Amino acid sequence: MSITFPLGFRAAATRAGIKPSGNPDLVLLVRDGPDSGATGAGMLFTTNRVVGAPVTLGLCVRQRLLTPGLGGFLRALLINAGNSNAATGEQGVRDAERCAAETARALGCPADGVLMSSTGVIGRPLPVDRIIAAIPELTAGLGRGERADAEAARAIMTTDRVPKTARREVRIQGRAVRLGAMAKGAGMIAPRLDGAARPGVPLSATMLAFITTDAAIAAPTLQRALELAAAESFNRVSVDNHASCSDSVFALASGLAAAPGAESGSSHSPPMIPIRPDSLEFEVFSEALREICRELALQIVRDGEGATRIFKATVTGTPDHASAMVIAREIVNSPLVKCAMHGADPNWGRIVTAAGNAGVPFKPSESSLRIGPVEVYSHGVPVVAALNDPRLREAMSSECVECVLRVGSGPGSAWMIGCDLSEDYVRINADYTT
Amino acid sequence: MSITFPLGFRAAATRAGIKPSGNPDLVLLVRDGPDSGATGAGMLFTTNRVVGAPVTLGLCVRQRLLTPGLGGFLRALLINAGNSNAATGEQGVRDAERCAAETARALGCPADGVLMSSTGVIGRPLPVDRIIAAIPELTAGLGRGERADAEAARAIMTTDRVPKTARREVRIQGRAVRLGAMAKGAGMIAPRLDGAARPGVPLSATMLAFITTDAAIAAPTLQRALELAAAESFNRVSVDNHASCSDSVFALASGLAAAPGAESGSSHSPPMIPIRPDSLEFEVFSEALREICRELALQIVRDGEGATRIFKATVTGTPDHASAMVIAREIVNSPLVKCAMHGADPNWGRIVTAAGNAGVPFKPSESSLRIGPVEVYSHGVPVVAALNDPRLREAMSSECVECVLRVGSGPGSAWMIGCDLSEDYVRINADYTT
Repeated sequence: MSITFPLGFRAAATRAGIKPSGNPDLVLLVRDGPDSGATGAGMLFTTNRVVGAPVTLGLCVRQRLLTPGLGGFLRALLINAGNSNAATGEQGVRDAERCAAETARALGCPADGVLMSSTGVIGRPLPVDRIIAAIPELTAGLGRGERADAEAARAIMTTDRVPKTARREVRIQGRAVRLGAMAKGAGMIAPRLDGAARPGVPLSATMLAFITTDAAIAAPTLQRALELAAAESFNRVSVDNHASCSDSVFALASGLAAAPGAESGSSHSPPMIPIRPDSLEFEVFSEALREICRELALQIVRDGEGATRIFKATVTGTPDHASAMVIAREIVNSPLVKCAMHGADPNWGRIVTAAGNAGVPFKPSESSLRIGPVEVYSHGVPVVAALNDPRLREAMSSECVECVLRVGSGPGSAWMIGCDLSEDYVRINADYTT
Repeated sequence: MSITFPLGFRAAATRAGIKPSGNPDLVLLVRDGPDSGATGAGMLFTTNRVVGAPVTLGLCVRQRLLTPGLGGFLRALLINAGNSNAATGEQGVRDAERCAAETARALGCPADGVLMSSTGVIGRPLPVDRIIAAIPELTAGLGRGERADAEAARAIMTTDRVPKTARREVRIQGRAVRLGAMAKGAGMIAPRLDGAARPGVPLSATMLAFITTDAAIAAPTLQRALELAAAESFNRVSVDNHASCSDSVFALASGLAAAPGAESGSSHSPPMIPIRPDSLEFEVFSEALREICRELALQIVRDGEGATRIFKATVTGTPDHASAMVIAREIVNSPLVKCAMHGADPNWGRIVTAAGNAGVPFKPSESSLRIGPVEVYSHGVPVVAALNDPRLREAMSSECVECVLRVGSGPGSAWMIGCDLSEDYVRINADYTT
């Protein structure tokens, strides 16, 4: 199980005729149980200046959820693949709002308790009638379990080769607190998600990811945990350095985690007390959320369009973490580095010069590069013998190539994970809309 | 004729055994005639933090040339392909200096009158002995004319499919003032050259380019003209968004343009008076220099690794030119836009969302995009009929696809030229060193 692994969630998927392939393309994810301070929601969205209509609406709802005294609750997400409803102007916003309102009506909840999330081709009107026509089937089909989860994870795919799911269970207040998740890639992936509560934090993600939990947690606390998790997960992967207009991460909490000894989901179970920010419980929950997000992010970059392997660029020795991130990002996004990874070519000069393009000052004479266990560049000078080291060839051929670049003696460090650039990436993307 | 088209220059090329292919790989370019205030030189180098040893030495020489009262003169360039002498530490600097000193000795000029310029694989020791052994043949073979020019332009090639040359002739002081040039690409091309005299100006180029002229012009004046020209040429092209550690542009002036009526190159010709900065003569010369640089930059991007077509992204309506440049650069560097160009796929959502990733604020509702003559996106809304317009398919299939994105009503505008991303780019770069 994945997205309905936590108590209090149901899902359903169907074919609404949005994808030209006729494959399933519409998912309804619903949170059950009463609304309370324990049923918070968190959201992160793309920082692209051009955003899809669902992102525009999501930003409004998030604003309300995070405003003290205003509140509100998220009950359901209507997710479609095949049409991103982006670059569609005011009509697009009206279309997304109408789909959400129809879903809310079917579920018997307030209209602003439902949000859409969309991925697919940009600049085409959303087929609203087909979507609305599919809502009764979705609400009737809502269920929990392996099958519901698998169908949902598959329906949100676009160019993904495989569905992406994850789950965790941790103990909080003696209860088994569950987290479940699903996500989709696989191109236009270089997440730069916003950080709502802390605008200064550079978050990042370019995909759709949905996380459920039966923890009891208020919206601002869940939002904070989600931001921390995304900064160390979605924020750290790039397939093609093109952040999408629709990147969104949602986290929904039901607060229904069963009390110790109580029957799972029993209504006799005393309610879980909401997790307080900065408590030990928060640490435990945040760590589980970060693990879930890392697992999804890794699945996304591994399944990057045309990818045959991934590579991790770790940068150390900068004055601060932020500048290490800038360098690591430049390395994983260099087409030349990505091609070298594809060819298992130990052309390390491309890694060093990509770092040199990041706009962060460093001295080559204080720089060293290691690929796997082999140092190829030491204090600005090539390690000539390294090129004949069989361990270098082995490291370059591995499923995840590990590169560690030290550029000084500062305390800053960061890592990014990218994937190789293959002929398949070009083939997939040279003919997508037509 | 090209590099020896202006009076006062000779060139020679040979095989020194630097390229594994055994093709010609070493060029000597010499300026003849006396040194004076009329024989200035200008240089631009990469802003990559990791620079080749020849760039390190070039920066020193330029500093001297541009320091009032210090002076100095550039007499010759020793140019090699096949080894960039980059990421080679202090030994690399000593190697480049030794090759330059040996060349100076052979030419009978001061050691600091010769600079090296190198391109090729990174992080390998320069084969100094082979280079020095080839110098006598080069000095003996120096000549002017079609053959010398063609051989020089071919010897500096690496992954280039075709040699790149240009020339111009303009009238200044009634004289025929000539400019000649050669350059090489074809990958690691996203020039971000420095601006020595004006550090604030973002110049840009990732290749080697050599320009000769028989105009009389002092070093600081020529430097300024070169910076202006590069900002509107090399600065405007990108093949793969990876600026090299060796990007260099050199301009050398001989001051030997023949006086009206005098025999070409006659020693009886009265000397040309050096072009004054900000004079009308400067304008004429600068315009010719810019044209030369544009012609070279266009040849470089057209011959980008694996390129089958180029595209021009023009951005208008920003508050200033700089922010328009940032957006235009983001568009031409998006792998998704480049793949769409390769497939002649009018997937304009990628262009609009690439613009949205540039970090420059703009409102989609004030944005419109034109591809060729067809508006596909108008004030934030798709022009649905456009996708069936045969002129759109025609525009996407042309040799240079023209895209104009308006993002507001500000006075800023800029353009960048990129090339498509093809399977060939991946093939060329997945196996380069091995």
